[in-house]
Amino acid sequence: MNWALKGVAFKNKSKGNHLIISAIEHSCVRNTAQWLQSQGFEVTEIKPNRLGILNPKDIAKAIRKNTILVSIIHGQNEIGTLQPIGAIGKICRENKIYFHTDVSQTFGKIPINVNKMNIDLLTASSHKIYGPKGAACLFIREGVAIEPYLHGGGQENNLRPSTVNVPAIVGFAKAAELCQKEMATESLRLINLRNKLIKGILVSIKGSHLTGHPRKRLANNVNFWFDFVEGEAIVMKLDLLGICASTGSACSSQDLTPSYVLLSLGLPAYKAQGSLRLTLGRGTTEQDIDYTLQVLPQVIHDLRLISPFKKNYE
Amino acid sequence: MNWALKGVAFKNKSKGNHLIISAIEHSCVRNTAQWLQSQGFEVTEIKPNRLGILNPKDIAKAIRKNTILVSIIHGQNEIGTLQPIGAIGKICRENKIYFHTDVSQTFGKIPINVNKMNIDLLTASSHKIYGPKGAACLFIREGVAIEPYLHGGGQENNLRPSTVNVPAIVGFAKAAELCQKEMATESLRLINLRNKLIKGILVSIKGSHLTGHPRKRLANNVNFWFDFVEGEAIVMKLDLLGICASTGSACSSQDLTPSYVLLSLGLPAYKAQGSLRLTLGRGTTEQDIDYTLQVLPQVIHDLRLISPFKKNYE
Repeated sequence: MNWALKGVAFKNKSKGNHLIISAIEHSCVRNTAQWLQSQGFEVTEIKPNRLGILNPKDIAKAIRKNTILVSIIHGQNEIGTLQPIGAIGKICRENKIYFHTDVSQTFGKIPINVNKMNIDLLTASSHKIYGPKGAACLFIREGVAIEPYLHGGGQENNLRPSTVNVPAIVGFAKAAELCQKEMATESLRLINLRNKLIKGILVSIKGSHLTGHPRKRLANNVNFWFDFVEGEAIVMKLDLLGICASTGSACSSQDLTPSYVLLSLGLPAYKAQGSLRLTLGRGTTEQDIDYTLQVLPQVIHDLRLISPFKKNYE
Repeated sequence: MNWALKGVAFKNKSKGNHLIISAIEHSCVRNTAQWLQSQGFEVTEIKPNRLGILNPKDIAKAIRKNTILVSIIHGQNEIGTLQPIGAIGKICRENKIYFHTDVSQTFGKIPINVNKMNIDLLTASSHKIYGPKGAACLFIREGVAIEPYLHGGGQENNLRPSTVNVPAIVGFAKAAELCQKEMATESLRLINLRNKLIKGILVSIKGSHLTGHPRKRLANNVNFWFDFVEGEAIVMKLDLLGICASTGSACSSQDLTPSYVLLSLGLPAYKAQGSLRLTLGRGTTEQDIDYTLQVLPQVIHDLRLISPFKKNYE
């Protein structure tokens, strides 16, 4: 992501200095864009609707004469919403603006066609699809003007120096192949589990609110906020019960400020603090879902009893 | 290396914009410094003597009021020369200038003490010591002002985002531990093999010239140039005989221009083209050395017969 954004920005500086991103990008795109602002670039952030979906028309409206790059996340990592990247790609192509998409959450899980979707640059990561850590890919369409980000040897056509990590790359490719093979069946299996989990929580816990879109979301993502409780406390209680969860982005698990993604949906900070992210994967079974649905209501109940907002709850 | 140089340069811009490197840095430092020049920084390159050794006094002389960083390679990757980094570190400390050293070739092979040698930043790589590819370390002394190079999540104290590659890091640490244990014995074993190889080539091949210093060099590095032949041709012939070798830096093996390292020793381009780098390692046996000494003279002889400079040879 750093390379895609900085590499395109610096290389195309003479054409323009304006970038468009969404307000719900992963922090690697968001913080890179912020850094680029400190280097003289301008960045427009497009907000999603309350369900966490971007409107391609908002992106079209934000385009200026000096816009050089649009970068939009495909599957949002916290709230799981899927963005209409095909429509966004079309707008970018019509306006001759480079389009980068972060598909970390969807690569190997949802069909992506860089030609049909008019994608110029695409980033995906190995460890998100059960490949080894330490490998990632940046797709660069032929003809895209981009600078190298690292300087050194002449590896990878002078675009990406350093000794090539062949084992990790081979592992990444194998993982992609396996995902491709099982995509249809695994996706269906996860959607069923996900829907069961969402429905179960909504039915059994009063004051539980699904964030993001009920259908236009990653097959493996469930994100809720709960009245009167803090996400961190839920995560700790669940951990003791053997359930791994997080409050938002795993990358900012040490950060206690409310998630900018949830805030962008219009949630006030105190509600965003109550968020819980449950992510499903290849190893998640129906038993796991049943167990979670069995213990979560009690966890929320217990936390509400000691909540400073207790009165509101009772 | 990219992070060390760019991170320190940008963070300390207000103090000064001058960097000092040697003319025999690895291309990752050299090309990073060149890129920094395009960003308004000034770089002074210090040349080594004809044996490839830097004089600390030359570095002291190059220091200006606006010098913020000195970056010197410890063990040169092509010609194997060892630089007096302790003396250089002392000069930097006295002048309150940050000192970075690239110890990729010496880490785990030669004792390094960041305190005694006044090293502020140090870079080493896992795969150079038989650890997994994809891990490296940047030592940053407490208090050193440095910017992150990648932007994203809050990992590693907000200094280095992205999902931590734990398996590769653990492998790197284990590899370092093993190197540390066997350092004294392995180093002695390699020095004996290296000296046998150097002596054997000098004795059996007329017009063979050792590059770099005969003693102040890496235990595992042998680098020669041969009158009237090209390095690339030697490497191909050796490959057919089952011997892996290179002409210079492995990173620029696809680059046919003469090595800037060899040119910096004062070798003319046509001589630098005749260079052969033979690197020893944990797997190198005395039989390997004997075999190389057995076949190399014939290889050089055969190539000289078809050389355009044949007459000079005959």
